[in-house]
Amino acid sequence: MAAMAALFLKTPTPSHSFPKAHKTLFAPPLNLSLSPLPNPKTRRATRIVASALIDPDGGKLVDLVSEPAKREAKKREALSLPKIKLTRIDLEWVHVLSEGWASPLAGFMRESEFLQTLHFNALRLGDGSVVNMSLPIVLAIDDSQKDRIGGSGSVALVDSGDNPVAILSNIEIYKHNKEERIARTWGTTAPGLPYAEEAITKSGNWLIGGDLEVVERIKYHDGLDRFRLSPAELREEFTRRNADAVFAFQLRNPVHNGHALLMTDTRRRLLEMGYKNPILLLHPLGGYTKADDVPLSWRMKQHEKVLEDGVLDPETTVVSIFPSPMHYAGPTEVQWHAKARINAGANFYIVGRDPAGMSHPVEKRDLYDADHGKKVLSMAPGLERLNILPFKVAAYDKTQSKMAFFDPSRPQDFLFISGTKMRTLAKNRENPPDGFMCPGGWEVLVDYYDSLTPAGNGRVPEPVPA
Amino acid sequence: MAAMAALFLKTPTPSHSFPKAHKTLFAPPLNLSLSPLPNPKTRRATRIVASALIDPDGGKLVDLVSEPAKREAKKREALSLPKIKLTRIDLEWVHVLSEGWASPLAGFMRESEFLQTLHFNALRLGDGSVVNMSLPIVLAIDDSQKDRIGGSGSVALVDSGDNPVAILSNIEIYKHNKEERIARTWGTTAPGLPYAEEAITKSGNWLIGGDLEVVERIKYHDGLDRFRLSPAELREEFTRRNADAVFAFQLRNPVHNGHALLMTDTRRRLLEMGYKNPILLLHPLGGYTKADDVPLSWRMKQHEKVLEDGVLDPETTVVSIFPSPMHYAGPTEVQWHAKARINAGANFYIVGRDPAGMSHPVEKRDLYDADHGKKVLSMAPGLERLNILPFKVAAYDKTQSKMAFFDPSRPQDFLFISGTKMRTLAKNRENPPDGFMCPGGWEVLVDYYDSLTPAGNGRVPEPVPA
Repeated sequence: MAAMAALFLKTPTPSHSFPKAHKTLFAPPLNLSLSPLPNPKTRRATRIVASALIDPDGGKLVDLVSEPAKREAKKREALSLPKIKLTRIDLEWVHVLSEGWASPLAGFMRESEFLQTLHFNALRLGDGSVVNMSLPIVLAIDDSQKDRIGGSGSVALVDSGDNPVAILSNIEIYKHNKEERIARTWGTTAPGLPYAEEAITKSGNWLIGGDLEVVERIKYHDGLDRFRLSPAELREEFTRRNADAVFAFQLRNPVHNGHALLMTDTRRRLLEMGYKNPILLLHPLGGYTKADDVPLSWRMKQHEKVLEDGVLDPETTVVSIFPSPMHYAGPTEVQWHAKARINAGANFYIVGRDPAGMSHPVEKRDLYDADHGKKVLSMAPGLERLNILPFKVAAYDKTQSKMAFFDPSRPQDFLFISGTKMRTLAKNRENPPDGFMCPGGWEVLVDYYDSLTPAGNGRVPEPVPA
Repeated sequence: MAAMAALFLKTPTPSHSFPKAHKTLFAPPLNLSLSPLPNPKTRRATRIVASALIDPDGGKLVDLVSEPAKREAKKREALSLPKIKLTRIDLEWVHVLSEGWASPLAGFMRESEFLQTLHFNALRLGDGSVVNMSLPIVLAIDDSQKDRIGGSGSVALVDSGDNPVAILSNIEIYKHNKEERIARTWGTTAPGLPYAEEAITKSGNWLIGGDLEVVERIKYHDGLDRFRLSPAELREEFTRRNADAVFAFQLRNPVHNGHALLMTDTRRRLLEMGYKNPILLLHPLGGYTKADDVPLSWRMKQHEKVLEDGVLDPETTVVSIFPSPMHYAGPTEVQWHAKARINAGANFYIVGRDPAGMSHPVEKRDLYDADHGKKVLSMAPGLERLNILPFKVAAYDKTQSKMAFFDPSRPQDFLFISGTKMRTLAKNRENPPDGFMCPGGWEVLVDYYDSLTPAGNGRVPEPVPA
């Protein structure tokens, strides 16, 4: 999405707002706090109702959270096992796995899944069918951890406070070839890849795979847990709204009016295609992001302001947080972003220029060709069922003094604003051109950059189990 | 195959030879010199006869050689087009493509094929089926070549003497991201990868794909062309021999008695499985190899001596040269080696430890895990139809003073000889342990290393069209 910010748009309805509906839009009315999971019978019923939605990969949504009745027994069992302390990113992957975003994956990858991911970006299932899986979801351990595990068939995964988070059973320990993992995932081994430096280079020389069972649902207690709907909950919500199409929009940046125009236009196109009630899943990424990205808590504030402005219809929009960490692995990662949304019920996926891309960490160029993401996505094994909606480029049309989709026959008439330019403006407390972003949303960005100097840090709190 | 030479074997029938049958074994009695291609009607008939063999990928063997009647017209057409001069390796790929080893690929890859190869090691065909394709088969051009091509829809491919070799039509020119190509193909970008240094790093910044038509069959005039059977010719030969199973053995090293034992044992296993007439395709790689490998011409001499010793049955063995260049890309490349042999009619493929592997060019370790090749091969998309036969490790059993398959319960009883050790012995004119290789074959190796100092070079001549 490096170029997603390169839009210069004016919302068609800048003054129209939906104050009453805002709460419905932003926080779907599901009771998440008391009963994080419906009981099994309810869930079965829900799935039957939800059968109008696209099937999850492998046919069944994976759910790796212990039943409440077994929770205490699981904690006791964990105390008896060799322990692996999870990093923040490890815990985000436990979260992702536990709710079935990676269905049918039922735990950290064993070697056969790791190899298929690296070489084929797909997993072949027992019945011969293929599901997409482009990013390794793996857990690294070092030599001393491996020694401590010894011949045990299970391990306990614990948080930074040594509280048991999950049990990994039927484990398999295999070599972690970091260089090969990085090269095949990013198509480069240049130093400076954020995820690689944060989570791979300094991690252990072994990977441990196995079947995951999470003691209780992962919570972060950062005031945003109510926006972290699981795939099952999103499916319930789409079903409740009688969606006959769900189109997902992945983002990790502040929302500007270009995004809004695009999402509105996508809905219009789906209606033209004959769908009666297309629902938008506006799905900001909530896991690890690189240091110069705007942190989740600020982005959510910004999204809230933008939504208060009413540029999106709350009746047809669900806003939720996607718990995955970010790899910045371009064409490889965009497949993961799309695949996970199938599991959440989306059958349309909007893809822009250079999705999950970034600048080359060493050379003066973008790491990926801006068109490769959508090309790779459209050809990816296991994503044949997903409808790919390429992003239309919008910009400010100077001849009409309003926003329009870019017309390549008269490029001189359009103005673009890059993400770098946007950040520079916000840091300098300057205003963007009129219509680029609603004033309330822009103010949040300015506040964020203010908070960076000198004391504020704007980081989201460490996640911990509920 | 780095570890394939780590066998220390004594042939079970060292003195038994098949002098009369040798010619049949080594040079299948096909008339290749006058009529390199049967006429189309014959070929159609052949394919019907050959239908007992495994189908080629995509259902039909690609044949990109012009009909003889059109040859002169094609040459004239080529003279009118922008020219691209082929390197030796380019020409080897033209050879590979022209005979259908890469079926259904009908020319150098366009971007969609290149991207699918890098990301998925497979191509999806129009009917939704998937064929394996793990190595990019691409043609690089530089900026000035691109400029010269301009808006032309076709180009002529010419050899080092400017003779037209082929026409590439409906061309597509796209960016050659060398770093990404290397990283995704080898899983490393370390300097010193032989193929990358020879054919990628110094090549142009663009790739040109298109439909290939070769003016006439590629010949090398090195005395070995009679061993270069096309997939169609191999299929004819297997059919003529009434093969009900074809098992392929890829090699790029001298044959020692360990190989022979393995091949003999494989045939025994296939007979036990109920096949009546399994035929061995002994298929040395004939294209580019790294400087310290034994050159093709010497390997063929060595194979000839070994075969004169009669350790393989000429009635059930076909020896032929596989024209592909070597990447040394381990688990990625072994898929190509297997896939190409499907196109030649093989439905069984023998895979050893560390196939297509080499030492890491910078670090003190093997580049690939020795088991990854066979694991990746067994899971590779598009190779489901191929039966993978894992290589059994054999060594000299000291307790019995004879060759046997390695018994891991008593490792101390076995002796191994590494490839490095073998080369050192041959360079120093020392003899290997009795039974490692037949004396005649060993003598060829000693002669080869002798030839390296001071004047001999042992390189195969440059290939040129017939």
